[in-house]
Amino acid sequence: MNKEIDLSKYQVRTDLAIDQIEEKSVLKGVKHNTEIIDNIKVTTVKLDEENDLNKKKGEYITLEFEDVTDYENREKVTNVLTNVLRKILKLNNDSFGLVVGLGNDKSTPDSLGPLVVNDIIITNHLYILNELSDNYKRVAAINPGVMGETGIETSDIIDSVVKKIKPSFLIVIDALASKSIERLNKTIQITDTGIHPGSGIGNKRKEISFETLGIPVIAIGVPTVVDATVIVTDTINFIYKNYAFNKEYMNNPKSKLTFNNVNYLKKELKEDKKEKQELLGLIGTLNDEELQTLLYEVLNPIGYNLMVTPKEIDFVIKKLSSVISKSINNSIHDIDKN
Amino acid sequence: MNKEIDLSKYQVRTDLAIDQIEEKSVLKGVKHNTEIIDNIKVTTVKLDEENDLNKKKGEYITLEFEDVTDYENREKVTNVLTNVLRKILKLNNDSFGLVVGLGNDKSTPDSLGPLVVNDIIITNHLYILNELSDNYKRVAAINPGVMGETGIETSDIIDSVVKKIKPSFLIVIDALASKSIERLNKTIQITDTGIHPGSGIGNKRKEISFETLGIPVIAIGVPTVVDATVIVTDTINFIYKNYAFNKEYMNNPKSKLTFNNVNYLKKELKEDKKEKQELLGLIGTLNDEELQTLLYEVLNPIGYNLMVTPKEIDFVIKKLSSVISKSINNSIHDIDKN
Amino acid sequence: MNKEIDLSKYQVRTDLAIDQIEEKSVLKGVKHNTEIIDNIKVTTVKLDEENDLNKKKGEYITLEFEDVTDYENREKVTNVLTNVLRKILKLNNDSFGLVVGLGNDKSTPDSLGPLVVNDIIITNHLYILNELSDNYKRVAAINPGVMGETGIETSDIIDSVVKKIKPSFLIVIDALASKSIERLNKTIQITDTGIHPGSGIGNKRKEISFETLGIPVIAIGVPTVVDATVIVTDTINFIYKNYAFNKEYMNNPKSKLTFNNVNYLKKELKEDKKEKQELLGLIGTLNDEELQTLLYEVLNPIGYNLMVTPKEIDFVIKKLSSVISKSINNSIHDIDKN
Amino acid sequence: MNKEIDLSKYQVRTDLAIDQIEEKSVLKGVKHNTEIIDNIKVTTVKLDEENDLNKKKGEYITLEFEDVTDYENREKVTNVLTNVLRKILKLNNDSFGLVVGLGNDKSTPDSLGPLVVNDIIITNHLYILNELSDNYKRVAAINPGVMGETGIETSDIIDSVVKKIKPSFLIVIDALASKSIERLNKTIQITDTGIHPGSGIGNKRKEISFETLGIPVIAIGVPTVVDATVIVTDTINFIYKNYAFNKEYMNNPKSKLTFNNVNYLKKELKEDKKEKQELLGLIGTLNDEELQTLLYEVLNPIGYNLMVTPKEIDFVIKKLSSVISKSINNSIHDIDKN
Repeated sequence: MNKEIDLSKYQVRTDLAIDQIEEKSVLKGVKHNTEIIDNIKVTTVKLDEENDLNKKKGEYITLEFEDVTDYENREKVTNVLTNVLRKILKLNNDSFGLVVGLGNDKSTPDSLGPLVVNDIIITNHLYILNELSDNYKRVAAINPGVMGETGIETSDIIDSVVKKIKPSFLIVIDALASKSIERLNKTIQITDTGIHPGSGIGNKRKEISFETLGIPVIAIGVPTVVDATVIVTDTINFIYKNYAFNKEYMNNPKSKLTFNNVNYLKKELKEDKKEKQELLGLIGTLNDEELQTLLYEVLNPIGYNLMVTPKEIDFVIKKLSSVISKSINNSIHDIDKN
Repeated sequence: MNKEIDLSKYQVRTDLAIDQIEEKSVLKGVKHNTEIIDNIKVTTVKLDEENDLNKKKGEYITLEFEDVTDYENREKVTNVLTNVLRKILKLNNDSFGLVVGLGNDKSTPDSLGPLVVNDIIITNHLYILNELSDNYKRVAAINPGVMGETGIETSDIIDSVVKKIKPSFLIVIDALASKSIERLNKTIQITDTGIHPGSGIGNKRKEISFETLGIPVIAIGVPTVVDATVIVTDTINFIYKNYAFNKEYMNNPKSKLTFNNVNYLKKELKEDKKEKQELLGLIGTLNDEELQTLLYEVLNPIGYNLMVTPKEIDFVIKKLSSVISKSINNSIHDIDKN
Repeated sequence: MNKEIDLSKYQVRTDLAIDQIEEKSVLKGVKHNTEIIDNIKVTTVKLDEENDLNKKKGEYITLEFEDVTDYENREKVTNVLTNVLRKILKLNNDSFGLVVGLGNDKSTPDSLGPLVVNDIIITNHLYILNELSDNYKRVAAINPGVMGETGIETSDIIDSVVKKIKPSFLIVIDALASKSIERLNKTIQITDTGIHPGSGIGNKRKEISFETLGIPVIAIGVPTVVDATVIVTDTINFIYKNYAFNKEYMNNPKSKLTFNNVNYLKKELKEDKKEKQELLGLIGTLNDEELQTLLYEVLNPIGYNLMVTPKEIDFVIKKLSSVISKSINNSIHDIDKN
Repeated sequence: MNKEIDLSKYQVRTDLAIDQIEEKSVLKGVKHNTEIIDNIKVTTVKLDEENDLNKKKGEYITLEFEDVTDYENREKVTNVLTNVLRKILKLNNDSFGLVVGLGNDKSTPDSLGPLVVNDIIITNHLYILNELSDNYKRVAAINPGVMGETGIETSDIIDSVVKKIKPSFLIVIDALASKSIERLNKTIQITDTGIHPGSGIGNKRKEISFETLGIPVIAIGVPTVVDATVIVTDTINFIYKNYAFNKEYMNNPKSKLTFNNVNYLKKELKEDKKEKQELLGLIGTLNDEELQTLLYEVLNPIGYNLMVTPKEIDFVIKKLSSVISKSINNSIHDIDKN
């Protein structure tokens, strides 16, 4: 038996550009820049037409933050996101936005989009009646539902409504799948490239973008689930890290007292390749991408369509939705707070 | 002071054809027929182009029944409604239906449409994948939301989705306003004429019909609220009936014991016009239509936008929604139950 | 026929002390005081054991305000309510609060209590684990449901939980019935006397108070519905006002242009008793209390159990719930905002 | 390096007695019996005080079935569950049941209990009014919420309500964690032993049982999530199975065409221990229990509190809730259907 396990076809899905940047070191067609604002890490990635990430040309801005269930943190993230949106939206007096909440309001981890839309300040009906005051812009919104509920491609509903009401820009909000457990509910990605096949929790969505709709499409995404393959990959890696940690610290008298509940991921540990293969066999010799590809092949034919999400997801998603709806309202309308 | 209170312009709204039939005796362009099936009164009204009801040409079928919170009654109404829908839909193998839930899922009395759509058996996505079995037809569904939530005319959303996915017929479900308290939640109207301006709980909807969409539009409506003017009109009439009842029965020794909690509306009572005017003044001389018109004039300028609904509306609407969704499923698909 | 229509037994229900103050001029055992803070009218009524309002001894504070769907107004009401609660709660370091949301989360106008409880900052489970930081107090919360859903007296559930977990004070939030359409959703009443039979949208609740539970019970109520009798009474009065307004202004050339959509309630109009009786008959000679009593007698035997509520109730109640939950959180915990 | 990875302390949690039976062959104090009714596998396990499963003495009945999203299957499961409940409940004319929905109605995979309770036919309030007809029994119900929402131990709420209203038996419905992905949403366990620490999706609940409450406690549970450790264990096993399958069938010309999407779990495959260790290293030598124990140790210190659930959970749980609520209603009340 040699290492020729078939590792090809499937590319494990991540919806976050930032996931890819960290993996690769030399990157063609990629400019990126990171700053820390109010404890929030803001990474801006600009991709040229030809780029090493195999992602669409455009801007990807990622906010990384701690727990938004804390009021102070929530206010900070709201402020930073408001500013990011203002810059990327570049609105004028005639701007007319359609806000679209993708996802399923009946499935907690996938309900982010619909929850955000419920709190958007809608004004288009007032505009039509000539009753819109100066500090508000025209905004409409829809929750198109998911294909399992409507039987209709979500992108078809959006496309047809866009053609009918003719907004000048689109904002779509979506719950994403992440490749990293640590990013769950602690990252917001904003991009001017729209939504692409394979994004989101639901499977094979069609593109929703400037190319398909003819107007700018800003996508706001938060990873709220990870694919089952991710948790297996991560855990297999952690098995070795945990082993290495135990070996290094367990017989060290100083660390004995605090040994339990130590987060060994935060320790610097040397990797011994031979030892790792002894522990994990051939799968211990695969890199993350190879391992996930393998796992996808293993799980796909047996029909597992599972998602992994934190047990407290209902609480977190409510707070994330509040951050995003307030940021959208503040960045579109000429108001300070809402 | 003479009777010239201004009683003109406004026509009080009822969404039920049956309300009008009972009021008027001689009717041009109107054929109607009533039968009792399983204790359910089924009235079919066929209107010619020119008709005395000032309603659109077409068929209006009304089911009147007792309490659907009872399981037996619910089964009966479901069976009758299934048959009515089968007849009016006249489906063939290529039929492709779009089911639309009008109304606001966050406002209990207006949530009938969205609740029904949640339980419709959707198949269009399977059809697209060529996975639809023979006993099912193509069905898609949407909950377009209300204008206050989306900023978009509901009819515009429907029109644009119809153009995109091209169904062969439409079913719209809506919570209606009734002119009669007694019909609340105890009537279902099915019509092939669609939805018209002023229908529904929300105010000024645009037409949704064969004329505007180019495909048959079957509207299923249940009166779940009455306008504030209706309850005032009814109550003013009841004041006199109650007075007449008291006068007739109060001094009758036989009736004394059971006097309390007697439903005086079920008694035959003589009307003494002079006495009625003494009690109610000039408003006692108005007929229902005149009185409602007056009330509309009285309430409109002070901006009251109120609805009147039973306190147990949440329970009743859940059961009504079950009746309608099952009937739609059974009448479209080749299944007995769902 | 003389005026001896039977006007006795029934007292039309209002849950607001303020409703009664305005009706009566000489009041024994009643101290009241009104101030305007930030455009909010704050009325404090203190009742002695023996008082003319036939209400329980205690303090009743009423905030009257304009539309809380406006952000600025919402902030103002939140600040004033926070201060009122701080004063009435008088907490110390050992205080342990149980917050109870009365009402039915499935019926929009009755969902205020459950909505508020969903946003209360709960800490009791952290206190038990010894993980509560200094600026937070012990708080637990329940939504006991309504009797139609549980089959259990709400007060029994509360009583049994209070006995088990032994809080030092109780806050109950409830949607109330109002006697005045104008107060709907624009009034918050805070009282240290708890909840009494006949309060709330549901009918005959048992008392929830210091007397029954042995701990202070602060009740926060908002009128979200009016009884059907109220809208009829109001409308009958408006019929005459509208008539008087029309008579006075209609032939006045100056007012002609703006005549439509004038809110005649805001005009000072003389009342001509003879004219009123001509228009409304004997019912035009009744005062409000007599008229409502009559209407209760008229509607009760025919089994109408209706509520009247604004069509936009879903939107308003969400905002009111946010005001109340934030005020409770800010007044209990040592935090500025949440 | 030898196999002495520390595999001790933690016992991976399963709430299903049936999970344990299949693992172990010789069992003391365990009687079990399996029958197939209408394609549903019904396993009855009776445990003595001393038993090899380390579970509480009592009866555990497990129904295993295919997809309840199909109407026919749903009817079958409802019938079988109704009969099982009738036998285990043994009601008489004076029986008075309290139905308790454990779990969090805002988190889809944990919302089974609250959903079931919403559809229970409640009669206790009618009994109190002496309005209960003969074919119905006394039933009350509560949704006590979860500790994160209330701050109160769920068992404390139940205990206090039981003391107050004194039911003669309790039914608790709960979403469970499973040790097996294949059982997710396809198993219902009914037991007369109540709910025990560590059951359910939420963590460390206190016991709810005859011993703690003094009345029979029937627990109805459905596994709707699996722990993250389970999916990792399963997947690691599947890696080898998939490898073995590929090796056996890939070069077999007959199977080539159908090779993709073959469910290799359904094939009989020989296990080659040496090959397995080559592929998976030392972890390939562990049995399931050892592997899960290891994984728990690996994941616990890094604070992952994740659940794994199918993407279509919202749809499945609605159907499961319908099966259970109907079965409870039919088995308690003297009705055929509801």
